[in-house]
Amino acid sequence: MSQTFTIAIIGATSTVGETLLQLLEDRDFPVSILHLLSDADSAGHSLPFKGKNLRVRELDGFDFTQVQIAFFAGEPQVAGGVAAKLQAAGCNLIDLSGGLSLEQAPRLVPEANADLLKSLRKPYQLTSPSPSVAVLAAVLAPIRRFLQLQRISLTACLAVSSMGRDGVKELARQTAELLNARPLEPRFFDRQIAFNLFPQVGALDAAGHALLELRLVEELKQVLGLPALRVAATCVLVPVFFGDTLSVSLQTAAELDLPAITIALAGSVGVELVADGDFPTAVADAVGQDEVYVGRLRTGVDDLTELNLSIASDNVRKGASLNAVQIAELLIKHYL
Amino acid sequence: MSQTFTIAIIGATSTVGETLLQLLEDRDFPVSILHLLSDADSAGHSLPFKGKNLRVRELDGFDFTQVQIAFFAGEPQVAGGVAAKLQAAGCNLIDLSGGLSLEQAPRLVPEANADLLKSLRKPYQLTSPSPSVAVLAAVLAPIRRFLQLQRISLTACLAVSSMGRDGVKELARQTAELLNARPLEPRFFDRQIAFNLFPQVGALDAAGHALLELRLVEELKQVLGLPALRVAATCVLVPVFFGDTLSVSLQTAAELDLPAITIALAGSVGVELVADGDFPTAVADAVGQDEVYVGRLRTGVDDLTELNLSIASDNVRKGASLNAVQIAELLIKHYL
Repeated sequence: MSQTFTIAIIGATSTVGETLLQLLEDRDFPVSILHLLSDADSAGHSLPFKGKNLRVRELDGFDFTQVQIAFFAGEPQVAGGVAAKLQAAGCNLIDLSGGLSLEQAPRLVPEANADLLKSLRKPYQLTSPSPSVAVLAAVLAPIRRFLQLQRISLTACLAVSSMGRDGVKELARQTAELLNARPLEPRFFDRQIAFNLFPQVGALDAAGHALLELRLVEELKQVLGLPALRVAATCVLVPVFFGDTLSVSLQTAAELDLPAITIALAGSVGVELVADGDFPTAVADAVGQDEVYVGRLRTGVDDLTELNLSIASDNVRKGASLNAVQIAELLIKHYL
Repeated sequence: MSQTFTIAIIGATSTVGETLLQLLEDRDFPVSILHLLSDADSAGHSLPFKGKNLRVRELDGFDFTQVQIAFFAGEPQVAGGVAAKLQAAGCNLIDLSGGLSLEQAPRLVPEANADLLKSLRKPYQLTSPSPSVAVLAAVLAPIRRFLQLQRISLTACLAVSSMGRDGVKELARQTAELLNARPLEPRFFDRQIAFNLFPQVGALDAAGHALLELRLVEELKQVLGLPALRVAATCVLVPVFFGDTLSVSLQTAAELDLPAITIALAGSVGVELVADGDFPTAVADAVGQDEVYVGRLRTGVDDLTELNLSIASDNVRKGASLNAVQIAELLIKHYL
């Protein structure tokens, strides 16, 4: 495995882009040349990689014909244009923006649906799904064979970093103002997020579903390969800087074998099952970790076909960048 | 209605006890004499009521034969003893501690199951259920006729004040330490709650259900009068001082009439439906208010028999004390 690859990160200066860069270094990804790209505004900045400073260059006019894999961590609105350009250049694309349809760039979570690649043609255009989907699919993958899944109810408590750096800054600023008894002035959010929850994240469609929830539902079905699965999802923004917490209730068609499920989860790579009676949290367990933390594994109070669990994960890591890097690792191992 | 009543509050110095006192004054409850009682530790304190300071007396040895209604806001372990004493004295009891079984002291939410009283004998022994149940039952009451309820999935995000004053102090202290970059020393909780969530609240049974969740499930079925209802509940402690946020997904037997449900909710007393496209939050809407705030009303993405909604409420108010006072108001209006 001495083969190395020419890689590009588009949107390198975003939170997700910088985490990608860090992960490529940490995981010793076999990079020969790494191109950091962005729009004109951020071009010219430098970012550290393996002890060197790499200059961020402008995306416009960049030639991708020599690049094997490009990660796209820019704005979703421009993903379509970038995808067409990469397609023409024969460069494989891993999109993290969610700006491409399921048909254009299927969602991939290596633990759950790696086989998808066998049915696709080069250059590959793939999407690393929304954080909750990547995390939930990774947890369900090792226990899928024990579950005849019918319905998933999910409340996803998302950290403010899901909204980028501005969300993090706003929570810090609002909290400091309140603790110092200064009048609160919401800026990035339209109201107080410090010591408060928003049970709605981002824009809604006409029926009242958040676009984030719609994306989550369709992506989860595709990744699990279960088009008939019913999924109820509510995304909630919580006053947490980093790390998502998912509260999940699964309905299945048959009584559960909880001991077998527990053993399968405990033995699976990428999943950390917390000790019996303990619970996982974003800050104490998940943040900065590649693993997703699972706990509160239990049947329903009144239904032995129901499985409930809670998951804490680093939303920027396994949620987004790590899954994208794992897709790239899968590509170079078997498909490039 | 010039009749007045002799009332006692047992556990008057607790958060819930003090809110009860405040509500009796705010709602101009027809009190002739008000007795404030507590254990020996807190006896001797004074609390303000209608411009006077009332002295808190010791519960032991107090004679309840002249009291019409006693609120119990003390520790659940002693509720049984207090209930026996009140029963013998012919004094009606409204328990807020949850220390009595469903059979001893049925749960009552006036909006949902006021008729229960017709089948009971005096002196009444009733329980104001756990906050999430009082709130959820109040929201479901006006729309029950539109729903053939089969299953409820609930994630209850509970404020730290659910754990009493120590929870509030601990969140404030931890947050200040973190913002001042001082090392965090968890005291009341066993780990960091500031900028973090705990997907487990309180003790668990052997099957992994939190006692709080078990109580919630059995109380909800009793209040709704639906023993066959399936309820999946997860209680999560969130870094919010006051106000609970419930994320609710209901499964029903038939396609929903969302316009009719919306009209019924908008017109119901005690429920405030937020504007279309907006969302309710604990801090901005619910805290300090008697009403519970409802929003995010929508069917499932893939299931028109599924109803999803979010509720924000003051956990100390409608969640506990207000519902108890409303039970007392119902008693004096029709049953005493």
